[in-house]
Amino acid sequence: MSTVGTPDPNPGWLSDEELAHVRTRLPLLYVEAIPVRVDGLGQVTHVGVLLRATNGSITRTLVSGRVLFGETLRDALYRHLEKDLGPMAFPQLPASPVPFSVAEYFPFAGAQFTDDRQHAVSLAYVVPVTGTCDPRQDALELTWMTPMEAASDAVAADMEGGRGALLRTGLASVGRLF
Amino acid sequence: MSTVGTPDPNPGWLSDEELAHVRTRLPLLYVEAIPVRVDGLGQVTHVGVLLRATNGSITRTLVSGRVLFGETLRDALYRHLEKDLGPMAFPQLPASPVPFSVAEYFPFAGAQFTDDRQHAVSLAYVVPVTGTCDPRQDALELTWMTPMEAASDAVAADMEGGRGALLRTGLASVGRLF
Amino acid sequence: MSTVGTPDPNPGWLSDEELAHVRTRLPLLYVEAIPVRVDGLGQVTHVGVLLRATNGSITRTLVSGRVLFGETLRDALYRHLEKDLGPMAFPQLPASPVPFSVAEYFPFAGAQFTDDRQHAVSLAYVVPVTGTCDPRQDALELTWMTPMEAASDAVAADMEGGRGALLRTGLASVGRLF
Amino acid sequence: MSTVGTPDPNPGWLSDEELAHVRTRLPLLYVEAIPVRVDGLGQVTHVGVLLRATNGSITRTLVSGRVLFGETLRDALYRHLEKDLGPMAFPQLPASPVPFSVAEYFPFAGAQFTDDRQHAVSLAYVVPVTGTCDPRQDALELTWMTPMEAASDAVAADMEGGRGALLRTGLASVGRLF
Repeated sequence: MSTVGTPDPNPGWLSDEELAHVRTRLPLLYVEAIPVRVDGLGQVTHVGVLLRATNGSITRTLVSGRVLFGETLRDALYRHLEKDLGPMAFPQLPASPVPFSVAEYFPFAGAQFTDDRQHAVSLAYVVPVTGTCDPRQDALELTWMTPMEAASDAVAADMEGGRGALLRTGLASVGRLF
Repeated sequence: MSTVGTPDPNPGWLSDEELAHVRTRLPLLYVEAIPVRVDGLGQVTHVGVLLRATNGSITRTLVSGRVLFGETLRDALYRHLEKDLGPMAFPQLPASPVPFSVAEYFPFAGAQFTDDRQHAVSLAYVVPVTGTCDPRQDALELTWMTPMEAASDAVAADMEGGRGALLRTGLASVGRLF
Repeated sequence: MSTVGTPDPNPGWLSDEELAHVRTRLPLLYVEAIPVRVDGLGQVTHVGVLLRATNGSITRTLVSGRVLFGETLRDALYRHLEKDLGPMAFPQLPASPVPFSVAEYFPFAGAQFTDDRQHAVSLAYVVPVTGTCDPRQDALELTWMTPMEAASDAVAADMEGGRGALLRTGLASVGRLF
Repeated sequence: MSTVGTPDPNPGWLSDEELAHVRTRLPLLYVEAIPVRVDGLGQVTHVGVLLRATNGSITRTLVSGRVLFGETLRDALYRHLEKDLGPMAFPQLPASPVPFSVAEYFPFAGAQFTDDRQHAVSLAYVVPVTGTCDPRQDALELTWMTPMEAASDAVAADMEGGRGALLRTGLASVGRLF
C-alpha cells in the first residue's frame, strides 16, 4: 500500500503496491479488441494479431488493457487501441457497448482463460481500423491475417492465456468462422 | 416487369402478379436500417428518421426493403441505404451480421408490427453514416434527431407499422435509450 | 397439397408447384436450432446433432425448417423442434428473439452455406432442451456431444450445407468454443 | 469482515476498509439481473422488480451484486439471484455469457447511471425464473409487472441510479419494448 504523507501521482488510482495487493483480492476489469480490416460492405477481410516478446519467447496477443477509475469503457478501449496500434490507426469503435464475448481470466490452471497475475474479466470487441497501424515498441509486429488463418490451431497455440478461443469467438461473432 | 407469355426481364425474380400472390402465402424477408451519426468514440449522437408522404398523410419510417433472390443481406442493406439516403451517405455496415432485433410484420390488427400488404420478417440494423444524406424523391426529408427525441412518444406515434418500438429497441441496442 | 383446380386445403400457403417456382425467385425464411443440455448454471455441457440418411449417405444436420405464412418465429422454432426432437424434448426457447447468427444459403458453389434447392436465410438459435429427445423417423439418431467434439473437423465434414461453421458459431455464442 | 490484526475469514477478499479504499480507485465489477416469467414459447410475460426501503424512502431496483475474487460470472449471478429472490426461485441462467447491456455507474452527477459509493461496471442479464420468489428481508417486495408497466415513466422514476433505462434496455433485448 502507499505510505501516508506522500502525494499520489495518480489521484484516484492505485499505487503499484496497492494494485499488486488488489490483484489477489478483486477481479479487475479489462477491455480487449480484435482489430480488423473490413471491405466496403462491412465484411471482415483481415484480422490483426499482435506478436510480442514476453519472457524471452514469442507470443501472440490481442489489444488489451485495464479500465481505470472514472474511465468509460469507450475511453479505455480507445486508449488501449492507440497505445497498441499507434495514433494513426483510426479505430471505429462499435456503436453498441455490448461485447461479443466476456472472457474470464483466472490465475490457476484449468480455467479456459488464464492470467498468472490476477483474476481479470475482459469485455471483448471487434474493432475495424481504417488507418495505418504502428504498434508500440514492445510489440514486435502487428500481423494481418485472413479470418481462416487467424482461426487456425497454429495461431491459437501462440496466443497468450488461451486467447485463441477468444479470437475464434470474435470471428464467429462477425460471421467469419469457417 | 414481365407479363404472362413474355420473357422475364429479371430472371430469378418474380413478376408483380406473382409477388402479389406470394405476399399472401409466404413470409417475405426484409432488411431495415436506422441510420445514425456517431462521435469519435463510436457513441451514437443523432438518429436519422425518414419523413414521407403516404396516401396523403405524413408518416415517419426507417430505411427498409426486400431481400432479392441471390442477394446477400449486406448487398440488400447497402442497396436500400443508397436508395433511401442517396449515393453520398457512405454507410458503414456493421461487421456483425446479427441484427439488433427481428421485427415480425403481420397483415392483421393486434400484431406488434403491422403491414397491410404482407407477412414480412425484417432484420434490423443500426448503421452509422458518415457522408451527406440526400433522400430519394418520395421521401420528403431525412430528419436527424437526438436519441432522446427519437425515442419520444410523439415520434413513435408517427412511425409506420409500429416501427416506433423498433426504433427504441435500436436505441437500446447501442446504449442510448434513457 | 393442392393441385390445379381444386381448393387449396391450406389457405394462405403455397402448393408444391408454387413453392418449387418461388424457390428460384425469392429467398425463403428458415429457422434453425442447436439443441443443447445445460448444467444448473446455464452452461452448455452437451450439444445435440441430428444424424440422418439423405440420398444414400449419412450426414449430420441441425434442427431446421421453413417459417410459414402467418407463423411467428417462436411458433416455427417450436414446431420444428417438436418435429425433429419429438413431443417430450421440452425445449426452452430463448427470451430474446435475436438469433446468434444469420446463415445465408445459396444454390451455387462458392457460398459459405449451400442449399441446392433454394436461397434460404436462416435465423439460428441455441435452445436448451430438458426432456427426452425422440427424433422423427427419417433422422436416424440424435447424438449428444461435448462442445469440443461438436466443434471438431470430423463433425464439420459431415454437416450438410456447411453447417459445421454454423454449429461452431453457435458454440462461440455460448462461450463454448475452445 | 476482518479488522487489523485478526486473520481474514475470507482469504482472497478485501476487508471493509480496503474495499472502501479501493472503491475510490478502481472500477468494481457487478452483475445485474432482471428476473422474468416466460410463457411456453419463451416470450417474456412478466418482469420482476424489487421494491426496497433505503434511507427512509421507497425505491425500486434490480437484482444486483459484486463479483468476488475467483468467482465466475455465472456463480456471482446465481448467488445474487438466490440472495435477492430466495432459494426456491429456480433461475434459468442464459446459455450465453454475453450481457444484454453493460451499465457504467459513476459517483458523480451527469452520468447516465450513478452510484454514490463507487465506479461500478455491471453486466446485465435477463433471467427467467420458474419457481417461487421470496425476497430477502430488506427488500420489502418483489413486484411482477407486465413489460409495458415495467417500461413506464412511473417505474423508471422510482428506480435507483438510473436503472429505469437499464430495465427498458433489457425489455428491448427480449423484444418486449413497445
